[in-house]
Amino acid sequence: MSSKLVQSIDPRTFEAVELDVRSTTSAELDEVVAGALEAGEQLASANPRERADLLGSMASALQDDRSDIVGAADRETALGPARLHGELDRCIGQFGHLADVVVDGAYLEATIDHAGADQPDVRRLMVPVGMVAVFGASNFPLAFSVPGGDTASAIAVGCPVVVKAHPSHPQTCLLAVRALRRGAVAAGFSDRLVTLVFGESIGRALVGHEDVSAVGFTGSARAADALQRAIAARARPIPFYGELGSVNPLVVTSAAAAERGDEIARGLLDSFTLGNGQFCTKPGVSLVPEEHASRFVSVLRAGLAGREPGFLLNEAIKAAFVERTTSWRESARPWIGDENPHTAGTSVSAGVLVVDATDVQRDASLLDECFGPVTVVVRYGSLGDAISVLAAVPASLTATVHAGSGSDPDAVRLLAAVMPGAGRIVWNGYPTGVRVSWAMHHGGGSPAATNPQHTSVGATAVRRWLRPLALQGVPDALLPVALREANPLGVPRRVDGAMVPRP
Amino acid sequence: MSSKLVQSIDPRTFEAVELDVRSTTSAELDEVVAGALEAGEQLASANPRERADLLGSMASALQDDRSDIVGAADRETALGPARLHGELDRCIGQFGHLADVVVDGAYLEATIDHAGADQPDVRRLMVPVGMVAVFGASNFPLAFSVPGGDTASAIAVGCPVVVKAHPSHPQTCLLAVRALRRGAVAAGFSDRLVTLVFGESIGRALVGHEDVSAVGFTGSARAADALQRAIAARARPIPFYGELGSVNPLVVTSAAAAERGDEIARGLLDSFTLGNGQFCTKPGVSLVPEEHASRFVSVLRAGLAGREPGFLLNEAIKAAFVERTTSWRESARPWIGDENPHTAGTSVSAGVLVVDATDVQRDASLLDECFGPVTVVVRYGSLGDAISVLAAVPASLTATVHAGSGSDPDAVRLLAAVMPGAGRIVWNGYPTGVRVSWAMHHGGGSPAATNPQHTSVGATAVRRWLRPLALQGVPDALLPVALREANPLGVPRRVDGAMVPRP
Repeated sequence: MSSKLVQSIDPRTFEAVELDVRSTTSAELDEVVAGALEAGEQLASANPRERADLLGSMASALQDDRSDIVGAADRETALGPARLHGELDRCIGQFGHLADVVVDGAYLEATIDHAGADQPDVRRLMVPVGMVAVFGASNFPLAFSVPGGDTASAIAVGCPVVVKAHPSHPQTCLLAVRALRRGAVAAGFSDRLVTLVFGESIGRALVGHEDVSAVGFTGSARAADALQRAIAARARPIPFYGELGSVNPLVVTSAAAAERGDEIARGLLDSFTLGNGQFCTKPGVSLVPEEHASRFVSVLRAGLAGREPGFLLNEAIKAAFVERTTSWRESARPWIGDENPHTAGTSVSAGVLVVDATDVQRDASLLDECFGPVTVVVRYGSLGDAISVLAAVPASLTATVHAGSGSDPDAVRLLAAVMPGAGRIVWNGYPTGVRVSWAMHHGGGSPAATNPQHTSVGATAVRRWLRPLALQGVPDALLPVALREANPLGVPRRVDGAMVPRP
Repeated sequence: MSSKLVQSIDPRTFEAVELDVRSTTSAELDEVVAGALEAGEQLASANPRERADLLGSMASALQDDRSDIVGAADRETALGPARLHGELDRCIGQFGHLADVVVDGAYLEATIDHAGADQPDVRRLMVPVGMVAVFGASNFPLAFSVPGGDTASAIAVGCPVVVKAHPSHPQTCLLAVRALRRGAVAAGFSDRLVTLVFGESIGRALVGHEDVSAVGFTGSARAADALQRAIAARARPIPFYGELGSVNPLVVTSAAAAERGDEIARGLLDSFTLGNGQFCTKPGVSLVPEEHASRFVSVLRAGLAGREPGFLLNEAIKAAFVERTTSWRESARPWIGDENPHTAGTSVSAGVLVVDATDVQRDASLLDECFGPVTVVVRYGSLGDAISVLAAVPASLTATVHAGSGSDPDAVRLLAAVMPGAGRIVWNGYPTGVRVSWAMHHGGGSPAATNPQHTSVGATAVRRWLRPLALQGVPDALLPVALREANPLGVPRRVDGAMVPRP
């Protein structure tokens, strides 16, 4: 059976180019998986220093291919070279950060309880789960796709990766995986530790494959559902780590609005239009005190007036955006912004819908995520109204509070109100922009993510690809190296209850 | 609607006693949950030292009520006073160990990334998930029931608990929760931070309650299924941490069998009959080299010959045991042991089924868990046969290898073979007996447990009741105390990438 050539589409013009690659067949998938498993054995047995060098080599290869990768990504996503160069910098930084995490060694959680009276010697460490399937997002063709955090964090801790190419940027995927594989070979590893598969139905086949041990996913709830159904049909259950997008409430106290309402409105405009509104951390609902709302909205209106329309990532995203914003424009509620759609490619204009707290109580769809450059401003009367609206917002990746510079008891109450439903609290800032660092948590409760204990950004992203293993009475020479008495890897360990830092 | 009085049944005589307590109604459940939530606010805001003192006070109250608790548990489970005193010691030790974990503070994973060039200040720590529902096991009426590890680990990190009383030992549950509540009050906490509910249908209502945030469960796969279906119907998904039992393969190499086959056979007999075979870590399948099997089995036969019948926990467990062992006795395969059932109460005799590796390939049911004092001895010809059998064993809480004292390459290969499917590897020992310590992992892949990343015993048992929260740019005074710059709690932290131990 010969399969279709993969098409690469320019969202600015809808021009389609056929790539020299076909949809992956199930026989090919079996081969890919077998190759990845074999490559994974070498990877899992490599020591942390070797895996850190591997990550560094992959990052260098991405850097070498920067111009081709950014060019393809710009043609396929219309995100623009400046943003895409920045995104590639982020990818490269992520490989570097994860190399630090691996060399640090604390992620292994090496723990030794020596034998005591009537008690056996027990040792514990985190071991790789096996092969990981990765599904990237349309909105970050680099940092949350082939060379993204899921791929890098899985390889960092010894898991080979098979990536399902994103249909919105297949050429970018192809160039990125070539760089990663060249980097692997240059570091003395097999190029099969990261592989790309293509096609509409291959995603379900991939997550259903008996040799896949975990799935990392960034994308829509609908796509996640289809994969989760395929996983539910497996004989051996595997974890699905999905980051599914989010409403990201932002609330401004009266004190903050009085002090710097104009500045916050301009900051909000920059944030919800960043990447043409296609961030999972976009502030989708912004709560502003009634008495300051008119001025706040006028600043937004002035900012929107000067803006050019922007291209969305693909035709489906444009269709959803136009449908939603058209229904909002046609409602009785104030709409700030131009009409949509525009004729050129996926181009749309940014906008703001203005509603009252009582509207939200009547129409929960106002709290749904709308991908693209739009936010809903909710005017609230009392602090109690604001807290009620926040309680109705679905669990989110982030929640933002803008407080006054002095003592602001309203802000303290709002902080307590948003804490249960958010993975990250942002204070006097904007949620777009996710720092890659040790403390970052980029996750949240359902529907924002499938497992609130895990993150797709930051040092602890590696935890998704690890499981604990205890070993009782195993002779020193047969123990995993990190648990041997002499600590040849020099990893930090907990020994008989006390932390022993790196030697 | 008046509900039924709860019955307490003696498995030795089937004598039933009516307790002065009724099945919990759904209105009462709402009250219990509301009370637990309120108590949880105080608990979550307590500092680690206060929570450690609370655990200590609860342990003291258990100690004070030891005689009543052990007496009731013996009448309801027939496990015998010696075992039950030991189990209460374990409970008390568990409260003490978790107090150490809390005071140590590393479980908070406090992490600070100070602001850098263009980078915000980001801080992360683990926060309690909210109210926890606990379902204990029949086979550990103390250590895996009301005063067990799930309850203790949840309270340790700030989560109030509602326990569903086990129908096989309701009186024991009642006495234990009274002690825990008295201990809570003595430590200055509300007695509503741990509550007991009773009844057949209340378990599903409890896990379906919107204010429950996580579930800890130890018991059968069938009971777990019913609860998981109730959870799947919730509007807000919550995690279900189930420990469901396990086959626990044990394999003896030729070298080990030649050196000390008799000793291993006697050790295996003690292990699979411990607690009358009612351990989730019971070795259910034991692989012995063909050439040593006849002698190995003769040692088992001699050991079994001298054994008195023992009582199982309840009538349902006896019925399942008798059905399974009767079909085995009636098969063409060698059966070592007396006939079952015995007439007195739940009494049964221990036994061993002897099969060949080829039998296992034909009949996968030989690898199912059978609760009670029985193990399946599998005679294997080649090492490859042993590895094939091990590959067919479902994922287990433990896997045990008995190796020769010198170089034993077979043992090394078997170690590699059992590693992917086990949560804990035991070397030259027996899997029954789970040390309560920092390094213990008591968990495994499906079907042994619902989430291979978590454990129900050991320091990391607390992770099930925590989720990460990141805070970006939040003023020092509003930060959770563990993240404030001055570190007033003195917890170990990672600051700008480097571990900073306790001051």
